[in-house]
Amino acid sequence: MLSAAALLFGACCSNECQPADSAATQASNAEAVMNNILNRKSVRSYNGDTIPAAIMENILRAAMAAPSGMNIQPWQFVVLTDKSQYETIFEGNGNMQKFMESGAIVVVCADTTVTRPTRENPDGPAVTSPNPMWRDDVAAVTENLLLAVEAHGLGACWTACYPFPNTMAPVRKALGLPDNVVPYAVVPMGYHDGTTQPKDKWDPARIHYGRW
Amino acid sequence: MLSAAALLFGACCSNECQPADSAATQASNAEAVMNNILNRKSVRSYNGDTIPAAIMENILRAAMAAPSGMNIQPWQFVVLTDKSQYETIFEGNGNMQKFMESGAIVVVCADTTVTRPTRENPDGPAVTSPNPMWRDDVAAVTENLLLAVEAHGLGACWTACYPFPNTMAPVRKALGLPDNVVPYAVVPMGYHDGTTQPKDKWDPARIHYGRW
Repeated sequence: MLSAAALLFGACCSNECQPADSAATQASNAEAVMNNILNRKSVRSYNGDTIPAAIMENILRAAMAAPSGMNIQPWQFVVLTDKSQYETIFEGNGNMQKFMESGAIVVVCADTTVTRPTRENPDGPAVTSPNPMWRDDVAAVTENLLLAVEAHGLGACWTACYPFPNTMAPVRKALGLPDNVVPYAVVPMGYHDGTTQPKDKWDPARIHYGRW
Repeated sequence: MLSAAALLFGACCSNECQPADSAATQASNAEAVMNNILNRKSVRSYNGDTIPAAIMENILRAAMAAPSGMNIQPWQFVVLTDKSQYETIFEGNGNMQKFMESGAIVVVCADTTVTRPTRENPDGPAVTSPNPMWRDDVAAVTENLLLAVEAHGLGACWTACYPFPNTMAPVRKALGLPDNVVPYAVVPMGYHDGTTQPKDKWDPARIHYGRW
């Protein structure tokens, strides 16, 4: 259905502007979402510019909108913006020196435990137990974060921390993480020159219909 | 910079239409991406309508655009659209009967191994070894898939399969998966009545600056 404004302005705008039609708006939004997902790429070189607080908030807001198993929401974030901090988390990892010009580094962390009443005794005391789905949840968090980075014209790179003991150790130590919190992914991000292109990974051979 | 068309039509369109200005377009796209991430929700009831092939292709295209550790791309997909198939994968899981009206069910699978030359001998023969990052990769795949579902006006629900042996067993058997392929997530999806609202999970207390 065309809005009144679209009808009014249709005579002069018909080819230049989207009418405020809900189907057209949805198609346009779907296209923007698809393009953003397909344009996301691992950017490994930044110009050192800082990231405005409002953009960082959007990025973290998107991250926290991820789904989580049984809605446990095991995620935590440590945001670094100081080069001396970058050095401490990269200690002994020469491969990470290329990220020293990051505008920020977000360390996506996970509480590997959950504290709540048991299913068997839902009105009883809270009990701490392992959460078997924390890794899946913070992976979805990290993907949301990367997509929000892309949407705001920045670039980022998901560098794996968990499950690699030698990568986790300096991060855990530098950030002072509690024992039940794992440094899951180290995500440098920043403004970039736009030269990195996304990979085309579409491969219909990976789709099976009905059964393998 | 305003395009010629926007300048031409600016006199009558200035309040109704976005000029074809790249900054304005980027802001509009960023807003669409953010809204889509924030509007994604777990939808558990569908109207049974089938999903057009072009939309399913978009959903799977988005899924395959996920990042993967060392670009291994361990993902595989089994697409089900037949109710008798839904019954076989839900065998013994009464909790899944609510998904019988799914327009489709996508089972996101992962090859847990990688076959390639070793780092030590890059020109040598391919060797099969475990991929320590497959779980992270297919979680990102699943999140991309959910976001594409949302963008196309459909709803979906990520139901965990891995790492639960009793949930995986009937799926593995019904789909005839090879031993090295894990059924990771079972994702029912379909058209819905739009009543399910997203959760607001924004919580600034989860953000730490500089260190924990």
